[in-house]
Order: sequence, then C-alpha cells, then structure tokens
Amino acid sequence: MPKLFECVPNISEGQRAEVIAQIGALAAATPDVTLIDTQSDPSHNRSVFTLVGTGDGVVEAALRLAGAAVQHIDLRTHRGEHPRMGAVDVIPFIPLDGASMDEAVLLARRCAQGLWERYRIPSYFYEAAATRPERRDLSAVRKGQFEGLLAAVAEPGRQPDVGEPALHPSAGAVAVGARDFLIAFNVNLATADVKLAERIAVAVRARSGGFIGIKALGFSLPDNLVQVSMNVVDVKAIPLYRVTELIRREAASAGVAIAGCELVGLAPLDALLESAAYYLHLDQIPRTQVTW
Amino acid sequence: MPKLFECVPNISEGQRAEVIAQIGALAAATPDVTLIDTQSDPSHNRSVFTLVGTGDGVVEAALRLAGAAVQHIDLRTHRGEHPRMGAVDVIPFIPLDGASMDEAVLLARRCAQGLWERYRIPSYFYEAAATRPERRDLSAVRKGQFEGLLAAVAEPGRQPDVGEPALHPSAGAVAVGARDFLIAFNVNLATADVKLAERIAVAVRARSGGFIGIKALGFSLPDNLVQVSMNVVDVKAIPLYRVTELIRREAASAGVAIAGCELVGLAPLDALLESAAYYLHLDQIPRTQVTW
Repeated sequence: MPKLFECVPNISEGQRAEVIAQIGALAAATPDVTLIDTQSDPSHNRSVFTLVGTGDGVVEAALRLAGAAVQHIDLRTHRGEHPRMGAVDVIPFIPLDGASMDEAVLLARRCAQGLWERYRIPSYFYEAAATRPERRDLSAVRKGQFEGLLAAVAEPGRQPDVGEPALHPSAGAVAVGARDFLIAFNVNLATADVKLAERIAVAVRARSGGFIGIKALGFSLPDNLVQVSMNVVDVKAIPLYRVTELIRREAASAGVAIAGCELVGLAPLDALLESAAYYLHLDQIPRTQVTW
Repeated sequence: MPKLFECVPNISEGQRAEVIAQIGALAAATPDVTLIDTQSDPSHNRSVFTLVGTGDGVVEAALRLAGAAVQHIDLRTHRGEHPRMGAVDVIPFIPLDGASMDEAVLLARRCAQGLWERYRIPSYFYEAAATRPERRDLSAVRKGQFEGLLAAVAEPGRQPDVGEPALHPSAGAVAVGARDFLIAFNVNLATADVKLAERIAVAVRARSGGFIGIKALGFSLPDNLVQVSMNVVDVKAIPLYRVTELIRREAASAGVAIAGCELVGLAPLDALLESAAYYLHLDQIPRTQVTW
C-alpha cells in the first residue's frame, strides 16, 4: 500500500459557496486524492479543505487548488476575522500511518517550488518544514498579515523561503508546512458574547495555562453564536470529551449552553471510541469489540 | 474473504475464574476463530463468550467449548439468578457482513448434531433456527429450566429437536439458535434496590411498552449494585446514548446514579460513532472522517 498523507489547504474565501465548491472540486479531481471534508466560515471568510492521498497526489491537488484560488481571490479586497496573508493562506502536509515527517517536509518543499514556478507566489516554510527556528510558529510567519507583509517582506528576516522577496499582488504569500496530525474541533456557544469564547479559549489552551497540547481561539459567528476554535495537537493526551465537558461547565457558569460542535477533517478512531466509552460509562471500547 | 459468523455460547458458570478461562481458551484455540470477549457474572453464575470466525471455525469452537463445559459444570448443583437449562445453555449463531441467516441456521443444525454425537446432549432450535413457531422464543424453550425439564422433556410438545427425549444427567440440554446481530448492553445502577432495575427494564423494553427492539431484565449484582441488562435487537433504530440517557433520568428520579455500563461482545462502528457524535454535539461522524 502506498504511504498516505493528509494535506489541509486553507483559503481566504468563506462566503461565495460556488467559488469554494469549484476550488474544492478541482482538488478532488486529482488522481490518488480524496477530498474528505470542506468547512467554510463566512465570518472568518475562510475555508478549510481536508485532502488525503499519496504524496504525489496531495502535492498536485494543493497546487491545482492554489491555481484556482489565485484566480478567484484578491487579498486587496478580502476582509475576514481570521488572520491571513495569502489567497491560499496555509498548506500543511501531515504524514499518516506509515509515512514519516521527513517525507512530509519533502512534500512541502515540492509544493512551495510548484507555487513559485506555476503562479509566482512566494512561500514561507513553517513547523517541521521551517528553515529557521523563529519560523516554526505560524503566527510569527504571518505577523502583520497581508497588509503588513507588503512592506516587511523585503526585510532580511522576513524574506520568503522560496520565491522573490515580494508578495504576489493579489494572492500574497503562502505558509507551507509539515506537522503532526491534529484534531480540529470547534465548540459553538449559544451567545453573541465573544468575550466568553475568548475567556474559555484562554482557559483551555496550553499557552495560557490550560491543557497541554491544545491551541484555542475565540471567534464571533453569525446567528448570535460564538466559537471556541481548537486544535488538539496532542491527540493521545486530550480526549475530546474532556475538552467538551470543560467548555460546557465554563459556559454554564455564564448561563450559556453548547449550540453544537464541529469536527473539521479527520479524527482517529481511538479518540472517538474513547469519548463514546466515557459517555456510555464503559471502561473502554477495544477495537476487537467493534464490527465494521 | 471467507464469510464470517459470530457465535455467543452462554455457559452456566460465572464464579470459578480458572474454569471459565480454561473453557474460553479451548474455544479460542480453534483454527479460524477469535475469542473477542468473555464476560462472567457471579450472581447470574453464568458466562458469555463471544467468538468470531468462519462457519466451520465457530461450530468447532462451540463444540469444544461445550465438551469442556460438560466436564466442569453439573446443573444438579448449579445455582444462579439467570434462567438456564444446560451446562452450555444457549449457542446462537449470527451472520456477519456477507453471510446469510440461512447459512447461520445450517451452522446451528451442524452444531446440534455434534452436541448429540460427541456428548449425548440434546438440543432445541430457537429463533431463526426454530422448527416450529412456538419454539422461536428462547424463554418458551427454556420454560421450567433444568429442574422443570427433567420431567417435561418427555412430553410431546417439549421433546428436543436433536437427540433423545431425555436430558443429559449433568449437562441438561442446549438451545441452539440463529439470530440477527444484537448489542448486549448493561447499565449498572448504584443501588441495592433490584425493584428499581426491574421498573426501569419494564420502562425501556418493547414488550412492556418501551423502545421497539429492546429486551431488558432487572437483576441484582454483588457490591450493592443492580443491573438493567439489555439486548438491543434493532441496532439501527435505538442508539445506545438514547437508552443510556433514558435510564439515567429514570434512575435519577429515585436519587440513583449510573455506576457503570458493560458492552458484551460486539457493537457496530456506526452505532458507536452515533453515540460519540451525540455527546460531542456533532451532527454526525461520517466514516470518511475517521482514521484508523
């Protein structure tokens, strides 16, 4: 069996459904690739595509997707709540079972090269693909966003890893990375009070004293909802039920209920069985007890 | 791939751990068979083995297991809360993906023949293997239990389907059946009040007005616990979370909490994902979002 990789391009378009569908369909039509999931957020004005396939497959799918994004998205007029610096904003490659991080880094290198050769879009490498320690962190790479980078891109410390030290006029630059698998899990709260979502994000995330292995941000959503948007980086340490229950309790103390949750992209079977076992009061659900 | 069957022999021994392990190990050593699960209940004085394998495999495993049970179990001195008429009490065969009920019925026929030829134990066919409508129901077949059947077995309506019209002196008789897949799911309550478990069983089970497709009984357990023991027969209609939450609410009105639940044998992946989705507030968890 060929080694499989996940690739999760984020584009700066979350409102025009037909454009998003068209861009996704182009990626999905690539040989040896499956489009697992598409999630769009109008207030973020951003969409996340989850692709799974061979190394060759996901690189080609990401490049086709980028080509379509460049045609349709102009960052000079783009507005949205989520930080961004490119029409295709980030392209992480993730090794799945049997594939290594080194191989994922090579896919990131090939993808960045392709972005430059085909579309003249410069790239920055981040996380495991970073070429220097200060670029491992995506938020450092994206600092100042598209508007701030227009000037900063020529500074010695801010020049792209691939391409000339100038942004693509309408498509900006892309952060291309390699990283471990993570679970993207969002909890939507039935309130318009974004401060509550932000306070809860602070409570759950590692960098402000919460759970090791969780990154979180609070956002406003349409329809009087707010969102605690999370990346569960340490999938084995943090069960989804524990995060959900913690957020439920924090929100309840402000009289707010969970309106719904979202699983973006993939989640490992064991993580889902662990949560099912917790709520059904089972010690565990070993895989041997599961029929397909 | 060969067709697979589940086989779930129940034996009348739930207290002597070494005997139970020895009997299970014999079945597990059969070629083309896996012992998925063993659950013993001391107050029922009964154990349930879940085997999965080829048709030939599970029939041979059930026969080996029966041979060991006959050696170790004597119904003349057996006491337990659960109704029983044999050292091996029931042997149901269940078709899994790709196998048919007709094939499972043939396995039941071969198993009953083997029980008679090897050990001189008579058998009754039940559920889909029943030879007459009034024997479809296991409780009708087992009416009077071992003690009552000693005399009744010679009556025209109560004679075994395979073997002579007399019980094996120490091992009684076996109910051999073929049936659809079901989920065996038990909810233990933190009380010694068996009446509460019985009332809740009445509330959830189909025959007294509860959920279509659920069979339930209330039992006492050691350590001041009681159990609502269920067979979820209509696996698609009744999600496990719904049963669990109904029982939680019924018990809570008597001030009693769930102490733990038990999943006996197999459960389908989709049923487990459905419960995980419910509790994690997800619309659904499609299989495409699950990595293995």
